[in-house]
Amino acid sequence: MLLTGTVVVDSTTVIEDGAVAVDGSRIAAVGERADLVDGTRDEEVHSYDVLLPGFVGGHIHSVQSLGRGIADDTELLDWLFDYVLPMEASLSAEEMEVAAKLGYLELIESGTTTCIDHLSVAHADRAFEAAGEMGIRGVLGKVLMDQRSPEPLREDTDEALAESERLIEDYHGAFDDRIRYAVTPRFAVSCTEACLRGARDLADAYDDVRIHTHASENRGEIETVEDDTGLRNIHWLDEVGLTGEDVVLAHCVWTDESEREVLAETGTHVTHCPSSNMKLASGVAPVEDYLDRGINVALGNDGAPCNNTLDPLTEMRQASLLGKVEGLDPTATPARTIFEMATRNGATAAGFDDLGELREGWRADIVGLDTDLTRAVPLHDVFSHLVYSAHGEDVQFTMVDGEVLMEDGEVTVADADDIRRRASEVGLGMDLDDERRAAQAEKP
Amino acid sequence: MLLTGTVVVDSTTVIEDGAVAVDGSRIAAVGERADLVDGTRDEEVHSYDVLLPGFVGGHIHSVQSLGRGIADDTELLDWLFDYVLPMEASLSAEEMEVAAKLGYLELIESGTTTCIDHLSVAHADRAFEAAGEMGIRGVLGKVLMDQRSPEPLREDTDEALAESERLIEDYHGAFDDRIRYAVTPRFAVSCTEACLRGARDLADAYDDVRIHTHASENRGEIETVEDDTGLRNIHWLDEVGLTGEDVVLAHCVWTDESEREVLAETGTHVTHCPSSNMKLASGVAPVEDYLDRGINVALGNDGAPCNNTLDPLTEMRQASLLGKVEGLDPTATPARTIFEMATRNGATAAGFDDLGELREGWRADIVGLDTDLTRAVPLHDVFSHLVYSAHGEDVQFTMVDGEVLMEDGEVTVADADDIRRRASEVGLGMDLDDERRAAQAEKP
Repeated sequence: MLLTGTVVVDSTTVIEDGAVAVDGSRIAAVGERADLVDGTRDEEVHSYDVLLPGFVGGHIHSVQSLGRGIADDTELLDWLFDYVLPMEASLSAEEMEVAAKLGYLELIESGTTTCIDHLSVAHADRAFEAAGEMGIRGVLGKVLMDQRSPEPLREDTDEALAESERLIEDYHGAFDDRIRYAVTPRFAVSCTEACLRGARDLADAYDDVRIHTHASENRGEIETVEDDTGLRNIHWLDEVGLTGEDVVLAHCVWTDESEREVLAETGTHVTHCPSSNMKLASGVAPVEDYLDRGINVALGNDGAPCNNTLDPLTEMRQASLLGKVEGLDPTATPARTIFEMATRNGATAAGFDDLGELREGWRADIVGLDTDLTRAVPLHDVFSHLVYSAHGEDVQFTMVDGEVLMEDGEVTVADADDIRRRASEVGLGMDLDDERRAAQAEKP
Repeated sequence: MLLTGTVVVDSTTVIEDGAVAVDGSRIAAVGERADLVDGTRDEEVHSYDVLLPGFVGGHIHSVQSLGRGIADDTELLDWLFDYVLPMEASLSAEEMEVAAKLGYLELIESGTTTCIDHLSVAHADRAFEAAGEMGIRGVLGKVLMDQRSPEPLREDTDEALAESERLIEDYHGAFDDRIRYAVTPRFAVSCTEACLRGARDLADAYDDVRIHTHASENRGEIETVEDDTGLRNIHWLDEVGLTGEDVVLAHCVWTDESEREVLAETGTHVTHCPSSNMKLASGVAPVEDYLDRGINVALGNDGAPCNNTLDPLTEMRQASLLGKVEGLDPTATPARTIFEMATRNGATAAGFDDLGELREGWRADIVGLDTDLTRAVPLHDVFSHLVYSAHGEDVQFTMVDGEVLMEDGEVTVADADDIRRRASEVGLGMDLDDERRAAQAEKP
């Protein structure tokens, strides 16, 4: 299969009249169109204005998608204990499947080809199956919560770890290695030391299993951890083994100098979630400082209740603009850096060393965009357009592992109308009263 | 003509199965669909998922549209003196018309029905004619610059004011009162006292003429004004008459307590431009504080070189998220407040007291949106969707003064493809070398 258009190979290389040849699940060649088109044979050709590596959502909550808009403009503890945790607690297996599918649908439609996905405590199988069925690449994990958590989200430590291991056995490397596992403690506040250490042991027992958790998102969280352990949060995570090259920490807004040194020295990955950090008023992560230290920083939308979209292009714009105003430096977080965060850095965080750029032999996760739009005129620079004026709707083509998931703006791997209809029914019908009452007992 | 759908009357009232009847240029009735549909007569009916008041761009530079993406990630003085001012200086009358049309096209396509539009020094007629031809409502003004400005933008004070007066005579109230005039000094730095006082005199000589200028956008600007005048910028503007109920000040990022008191006491309008303030790293305007003081705050995209879109929905999201993270308060700048800023507050700033809400007898500036989208599912609350997950592309219908400018996503008042093609040619062909050299003499 041949894809033609302006090819964005990576953050430094653009081929104006280019092409990408795909053979099976891999990129067979990247180059000038004239060199790759072979007029002598019948070849399937797809043409789009711009072709680029698929985006990587470095921190996503697909199964929170039904909570889009349920808790806007709300204090963080209310947001969590009155809405988000009760919602996660309330969803049946079937509803969790609908939520996950809505999330994956939005990701595929807007060009995210890989997600590092923080599921919920229960019914994780439904999300693994949905991701596999819909063809997205994902590093998914069932959530671990064994303290300070409302029923029924709080689990017995050993049972929760055993269930994680069962899921690793069932799904890690499944669907032609498109799906992998991340052991996923919610955050230090809701996990005992035994749980956190158990997460490390579990990840060590398998090749390529990651660890994914929230860290230092807000000030209340780091105060609680310091009260519990006597340590700053990143030091505590380091103490129990939750730093390192296989660890993805979402947020990292509130870190001090010594914690940043730990992140850099251990090769821990950070996922920046600017929309979420702004909407929940968590704070502003020191992204430029992390990048200067050589820390790998990916980009993530977080979940629908705190964003309220999973559009990677909206998130790229947000990351750049927030980075500039934070230090009053308009040269900060420039377009190509943001593009790297959303592609190659995300792939690195997810654990793939042959993903996130369009290179011969690498995995064929490719997105095609339309730029025949008023807000793309004049198109002086493709990175400028992608970061500052493109939207998820511009994505018309999404391919993962050489499989076409969306073509000409139509998702081919799922019945999008049916997913939206079911998600709307379930989402608008949610009654969280019982779960909300139960959660009050644990609300700080 | 009858429009049907979920009707957003204003920031507090939504009619789920509603309708708006339009008679000529005015709204004839707003209510339940069942009450307004008259099955006995043949009536033109347009149905959209959501109907709402058209957005008001409270500070727009339509004629900068060709500079989209020419100066990203750039220091402010370079941005202004190496790119934006040279571009404005370089454009011929015909090129200025193309630039304005590209701007108005983007505004109409994404649902802005009124713009307070800061043109350039020369060729303002072309923008007035373009706005009139394309049917958008606008408060437009030729820019005044008579000091510290590169040739050929710097003009003789009296000639610049005389040309402004000529434009008022020609265009103020033109096109069935869709086009009005704002006397438009660029900012205090580039205008002599005589120019600023002359602007006030000119505005006073005509009914409904506004004054529109930039104010206190960045720290270098307010330092320069203080060096020149011994006064903080807002006090200086107040001193020369550029505060009051007919004055719109864009940005107002750097104001102190006493300046804010002046803004409140004089009834001066402020236009908040969050994307521009973030991308140029100007700072964060104290929007919540202004609103608490009763200052009318509108919302604006500014221009394509510093945004890089004119999408009002993107700007609404940006305003809310920036307001929340600024004071670490997730309840700040909630969705309905942002909606008010983008509609009614903008109309008030523009000088219309019968615009910005869908009310019987008011001007029929109405927008229709599609919500059959994955990122609109589930749709718990229409204001949440509009502010946090809608994009300009969702706008399918745009009406100004009862005239349909866009229907089913197709602009009917201009050849959109032709505008984009010409704008692309001119924009990509711009050679600013001479103008850039000329501008260096004035660069601070």
